[in-house]
Amino acid sequence: MEKPASPIRPTDDEARKLARGLLAQARTAALATLTEGGFPNATRIAFLDLDGAGLAFVSALSAHARALAADPRCALLVGEPSAKGDPLTGPRLSLRATARPVARSSAEHAHLMDLWLAAHPKSRLYAGFADFRFVMFVWRDASLNGGFGKAFELGPPDLRRADPGGND
Amino acid sequence: MEKPASPIRPTDDEARKLARGLLAQARTAALATLTEGGFPNATRIAFLDLDGAGLAFVSALSAHARALAADPRCALLVGEPSAKGDPLTGPRLSLRATARPVARSSAEHAHLMDLWLAAHPKSRLYAGFADFRFVMFVWRDASLNGGFGKAFELGPPDLRRADPGGND
Repeated sequence: MEKPASPIRPTDDEARKLARGLLAQARTAALATLTEGGFPNATRIAFLDLDGAGLAFVSALSAHARALAADPRCALLVGEPSAKGDPLTGPRLSLRATARPVARSSAEHAHLMDLWLAAHPKSRLYAGFADFRFVMFVWRDASLNGGFGKAFELGPPDLRRADPGGND
Repeated sequence: MEKPASPIRPTDDEARKLARGLLAQARTAALATLTEGGFPNATRIAFLDLDGAGLAFVSALSAHARALAADPRCALLVGEPSAKGDPLTGPRLSLRATARPVARSSAEHAHLMDLWLAAHPKSRLYAGFADFRFVMFVWRDASLNGGFGKAFELGPPDLRRADPGGND
């Protein structure tokens, strides 16, 4: 059987459901940022899905916070590797995003803190540190890898939970 | 107690040992690459530490392989998040690297395949695919985060196993 020239499949509801599930379950993400001169960097962040955007709570002293302040273009990887078998069979989602910092003095900060601490209760230890603030990730597009040979491209609407009045 | 302006500690043998251990144990990594226009991307790769360099085995059709062919500057993140507690307490290593592809027809490819399949036996399923090849990551520098507030900067010599005749 000849291999196809492009491994990308048409996006379907199963792919959207898998991508949304990976986002909703993720409590950490790998974050790709740009350092001075455009060299990439990869760091770990604690993560929360906000249904249409992503959220991190970072120290302004961290390498990624400084990189995002200089250039908001970034990418996130969510979905943990499977503990057994081939590490590439586990589904994962690569998201391209633009980062937007949230001022500590804002009402938005207080609202996000409630959501954040519900998902990340251990953050309470440093929630009050003056150098910590929320960063919102506004999705541009994403690539889903559902396992070997199962690749999909998704846009921002594909990453929102489908039915706010429904049962998901 | 006042917080220090820089969270970086002087690199010591404990930091080197932790960094080398994270590399040696890693079977996957998050890879940050640059796409067209310089936008970052973050993907997952299967990984192997070669003591002084890193190794991945990737399809030429993958987004990261195409990105690295256009711009070899990249970064890797190794060290899995801890399953319990704060996701940022687990140690992890951010490595900046230059990628070098290895020709399939080379003696180096055959040698690397032996090492790779010993660590990643499931790769045998696609080891013979014509679009798969090894990519070597030549380390430039690295940042170790040994847990909250334990940050170190490391150079390539810090990432090599210290004593080839010794007991590590």
